[in-house]
Amino acid sequence: MIIVLKPNTSKEQADEIQRRIEAKGLKPLYLPGTERVVLGAIGDERVLAQLHLEGHPQVESVKPILSPHKLVGREFHPHDSIVKIAGVPVGGERFVVIAGPCAVESYQQMTDTAKAVKSAGAAVVRGGAFKPRTSPYAFQGLGVAGLEILHKVSKEQGIPYVTEVVEVADVELVAKDSDALQVGARNMQNYRLLSALGHCGKPVLLKRGPAAELKELLLAAEYIVNEGNPDVIFCERGIRTFETATRNTLDLNAVPFLKQRSHLPVMVDPSHGTGVRSLVTPMARAAVAAGADGILVEVHVDPSVALSDGAQSLYPQQFAELMEGIKPFVQAAGRTL
Amino acid sequence: MIIVLKPNTSKEQADEIQRRIEAKGLKPLYLPGTERVVLGAIGDERVLAQLHLEGHPQVESVKPILSPHKLVGREFHPHDSIVKIAGVPVGGERFVVIAGPCAVESYQQMTDTAKAVKSAGAAVVRGGAFKPRTSPYAFQGLGVAGLEILHKVSKEQGIPYVTEVVEVADVELVAKDSDALQVGARNMQNYRLLSALGHCGKPVLLKRGPAAELKELLLAAEYIVNEGNPDVIFCERGIRTFETATRNTLDLNAVPFLKQRSHLPVMVDPSHGTGVRSLVTPMARAAVAAGADGILVEVHVDPSVALSDGAQSLYPQQFAELMEGIKPFVQAAGRTL
Amino acid sequence: MIIVLKPNTSKEQADEIQRRIEAKGLKPLYLPGTERVVLGAIGDERVLAQLHLEGHPQVESVKPILSPHKLVGREFHPHDSIVKIAGVPVGGERFVVIAGPCAVESYQQMTDTAKAVKSAGAAVVRGGAFKPRTSPYAFQGLGVAGLEILHKVSKEQGIPYVTEVVEVADVELVAKDSDALQVGARNMQNYRLLSALGHCGKPVLLKRGPAAELKELLLAAEYIVNEGNPDVIFCERGIRTFETATRNTLDLNAVPFLKQRSHLPVMVDPSHGTGVRSLVTPMARAAVAAGADGILVEVHVDPSVALSDGAQSLYPQQFAELMEGIKPFVQAAGRTL
Amino acid sequence: MIIVLKPNTSKEQADEIQRRIEAKGLKPLYLPGTERVVLGAIGDERVLAQLHLEGHPQVESVKPILSPHKLVGREFHPHDSIVKIAGVPVGGERFVVIAGPCAVESYQQMTDTAKAVKSAGAAVVRGGAFKPRTSPYAFQGLGVAGLEILHKVSKEQGIPYVTEVVEVADVELVAKDSDALQVGARNMQNYRLLSALGHCGKPVLLKRGPAAELKELLLAAEYIVNEGNPDVIFCERGIRTFETATRNTLDLNAVPFLKQRSHLPVMVDPSHGTGVRSLVTPMARAAVAAGADGILVEVHVDPSVALSDGAQSLYPQQFAELMEGIKPFVQAAGRTL
Repeated sequence: MIIVLKPNTSKEQADEIQRRIEAKGLKPLYLPGTERVVLGAIGDERVLAQLHLEGHPQVESVKPILSPHKLVGREFHPHDSIVKIAGVPVGGERFVVIAGPCAVESYQQMTDTAKAVKSAGAAVVRGGAFKPRTSPYAFQGLGVAGLEILHKVSKEQGIPYVTEVVEVADVELVAKDSDALQVGARNMQNYRLLSALGHCGKPVLLKRGPAAELKELLLAAEYIVNEGNPDVIFCERGIRTFETATRNTLDLNAVPFLKQRSHLPVMVDPSHGTGVRSLVTPMARAAVAAGADGILVEVHVDPSVALSDGAQSLYPQQFAELMEGIKPFVQAAGRTL
Repeated sequence: MIIVLKPNTSKEQADEIQRRIEAKGLKPLYLPGTERVVLGAIGDERVLAQLHLEGHPQVESVKPILSPHKLVGREFHPHDSIVKIAGVPVGGERFVVIAGPCAVESYQQMTDTAKAVKSAGAAVVRGGAFKPRTSPYAFQGLGVAGLEILHKVSKEQGIPYVTEVVEVADVELVAKDSDALQVGARNMQNYRLLSALGHCGKPVLLKRGPAAELKELLLAAEYIVNEGNPDVIFCERGIRTFETATRNTLDLNAVPFLKQRSHLPVMVDPSHGTGVRSLVTPMARAAVAAGADGILVEVHVDPSVALSDGAQSLYPQQFAELMEGIKPFVQAAGRTL
Repeated sequence: MIIVLKPNTSKEQADEIQRRIEAKGLKPLYLPGTERVVLGAIGDERVLAQLHLEGHPQVESVKPILSPHKLVGREFHPHDSIVKIAGVPVGGERFVVIAGPCAVESYQQMTDTAKAVKSAGAAVVRGGAFKPRTSPYAFQGLGVAGLEILHKVSKEQGIPYVTEVVEVADVELVAKDSDALQVGARNMQNYRLLSALGHCGKPVLLKRGPAAELKELLLAAEYIVNEGNPDVIFCERGIRTFETATRNTLDLNAVPFLKQRSHLPVMVDPSHGTGVRSLVTPMARAAVAAGADGILVEVHVDPSVALSDGAQSLYPQQFAELMEGIKPFVQAAGRTL
Repeated sequence: MIIVLKPNTSKEQADEIQRRIEAKGLKPLYLPGTERVVLGAIGDERVLAQLHLEGHPQVESVKPILSPHKLVGREFHPHDSIVKIAGVPVGGERFVVIAGPCAVESYQQMTDTAKAVKSAGAAVVRGGAFKPRTSPYAFQGLGVAGLEILHKVSKEQGIPYVTEVVEVADVELVAKDSDALQVGARNMQNYRLLSALGHCGKPVLLKRGPAAELKELLLAAEYIVNEGNPDVIFCERGIRTFETATRNTLDLNAVPFLKQRSHLPVMVDPSHGTGVRSLVTPMARAAVAAGADGILVEVHVDPSVALSDGAQSLYPQQFAELMEGIKPFVQAAGRTL
């Protein structure tokens, strides 16, 4: 950690700050310059965070050197982690496709979708029972009834499923039967929820918040792992920018960045990442080539009557074409579907 | 609602969509153009939302005409609402200052701060017992013990208090004694929490999310009011942009925009909105002039040892100067402190 | 074009606006609703733009229906355009790689780089003689001497070159010998420069501005084509967002979006789009898979002494590996290198 | 400057970098840590920029300590600069209002506007002869004829004027008669234009680019001052963010930030900064309170027929009300109109 002091700082004031650094058991460094005094304190950034020097009146700025996410970082865990969703390995050679509707609407809809996506090659089905919606007048999901539909369809069709959890009180219920729990973008910094998921016993698919920096996403995963659950999968799903031609800006830079910094798997959601049906397949291909470990795709048996996210949902036939379309890129990446 | 159809849409396909509009009890309009067919459906946008036409393969775009937030909007409620925090009226002639530390750290710290901010003219004290923090290794707040300190200090010093609630399960506990509940920026779209606050019986200070559009903020308030709690106060606290010289970009455009669209009061948080101590007072003055109904200011008895947000916290003396500094602007705005 | 009138608009006021629409030779539509009157005016959006209705006191909003970029749009030009850089076709089956240093530094540096990138498979070499730099104290390029080096090296090594033009007064000089002219991101909305390039007689590589919406990029190309030069190539190079882990956020959504809306070729610059050397190759692969017609890559014979953009420049050996690495993805895309 | 080396860097590699630092006449510092080696090099950041260490393969990151804008910075120039526009002092006690239409449309329009804004209290009139427009089909300004109208009206009405220059070749012509030259937002990083303005002999009103960080704005001013023209006035006019309720997000944080970092005057443009007529006056008041030295306001004799920017232009009567409305805030700020 580098601490830049203000121009008018006296030697006594600098000494006082150095004593604070020493009091934490760290070795301080004194670097006098021509216009500024700079202090150094090299060590575990997690200890350094307890110095709380940002608020000191003589401190101009504090620049961290080391990354504060030791558990999810690659520095002390160089090899790729593989997270298994009911036996489906995410993070290894296999490129994993998770597909399904935004929201569970009925048993029939889920059955038809599960059949369609499984036959096209999806490894896992998705569907939301609890839906966080921007407007209180929009469809909010079927709730517990939706969970039951998911569980039944999953067993009948022989395909694991992932579903979103939006609230600490629901974690146990959702974790009981589902094969993986999704944290939606709006909840990425719901720290109580993250901590609760540290004890849920199931893999967590952690979506990046629309305004979350990648270092914040890494720290959100650190919350879950720090509580005891090592099975976290990142999911890039687009960030909010000034561009309005697409619903979000899919930030594929995130894929190699996260893979280089962390040992955890990284998936991509080109449906939310674009919000436009015709862009989903090209961006799915791009995700494969960027090095993603899998994709999440919204598929609906009839998007023209979907209760949410219809504009970005694929028809089953379009999803089958997407699977055909990504095949040569998956092979080019040295992976299998 | 205006529905633009794709160039190649047949008359039959357009008719089918018009029948859907009629089935909702609305009158459809057919507007043939030289290159596109455009359909109209004028009516309550909340009913129109149930048409789910975005996902239709022949629909190019859907453009809403009316605002979807009837309860918080000014159209059917033209007069300003006044929300009372333990008798302190927010939204009327008085300019309300809420001040205090980011986090409750101890009984002594809160007592000293409450005395200082009250004597300088603050109407309400603030302090966080539950702190959502980006890193799992940062100070997370004192929890229930913090709530007890707040309550005790508030009674002893004779000043109401507002504190943050981060989780549905805590709503009842936090609402029991506190005079107002704050929804933090990261929870602005935690819809289960918003719904729960619709039944908490206390005013809600709703902070804008760092990536939330103003129409989303209006809809977040609509959630609370729709569940039965009319006492919502907006709080602009800065949005996330590309600019890194400041912690956030305080969007004061939001103040007149919200005041013109909604009857609810609007406050401003120049501490989070800048993240820089030396910018807090000028931006507090600007908030007054933009038409805000009050401000939230972070004050700590000694920011150099604050456990969180020290860089943006004012010393008590600086807060007293801020209060002096805003006085002529409050008068210029035709209000009182 | 849809014109939404304010709630209190009288019939007379609406009639006056309709007469304005008729005066432009267009047919107005009157759509009375329960809470708002909406007017329609379907026709050429370029004529409609001359109505200037945004400023009318009774107009709440104006929503365009048709795209305003007829020349670069696909609606009236459905087939892909192929733009040739000294015989190298961009926009067809071939995937075109343009590589070279950020700035021309010396004859030796350019010769070494041109040899290296050509032998690794690049079709065109790049290098900047005029460098727009954020700081007046940074290296600003060799200017005319740089242009002469580029021309000499290009002839000797038998590889075409592209170089940036930053100023109307330089267009003729730069266009004389170079095989294509680049408009840098900061100049994307320098309309005088765009107009001048409409007469330069050489292909133009138009980089997206860091804060430019895609519709603005389309309109910038429309400027050049409208002045008589049909040979424009788009280049996505990253936009400015809140994310600071990367220099820019490479927006690959732009590739399929532009390809679907426009007949012009689309290239991608993963060097500026990431700003991080280790992310360039994965994002080059992603660009191929997203459907780009080619890439621009910064390569320097020794990035550790590069006078600009060293952090994102590849060593020649790394560039050779990039070319090997994209090969299977180029094949998967059904293209050739 | 702090140079963080990669984890695996050898002592020899670190020595080589230290020798590079010494070769520039600077004293290197060697700071071995438990996990990283950190090097220091304290001195003039402008010299350090020539080290080009960002591209070195063993360098993880480079963190500057000192600001690179010595001429416009306050560190060596602590007192406020006052820039005079034809005798009107900007940056001192007087709060300066510049008002007028977006574009010069006719002699009559300019005469009527100049009379109106002068009688309401504006000190300077504005109007664009050269208009950079997003679409090639939009009104591009009257050009030289517009300049002549401005000059004539200014003389006749006895009020100085400022107008935009968009191109190096026009600088001499525009500078000849006008009292100040405006650099528009899209040209803030047109460095050739900035350099040319360093020799124009007239004050320069430098608008912040829509995606420009404040440090880039400071450096843009440094270009002009470094070329010999000390008379630069900053103008905050809104940045591009995800928020679409307003045309831009007016970043008033910029006002105290720039005033604290630089000795140059700072103005605010609430017309472009909001893009919405009803928000202009509240944000003009906020600009006063934030500490701005003046404002730029768009006023048109009849916005309903304005050829550009009608939606944000005030009617003359509204401008007169704005002037009345800001008066008490100007007094509260201890200034005069």
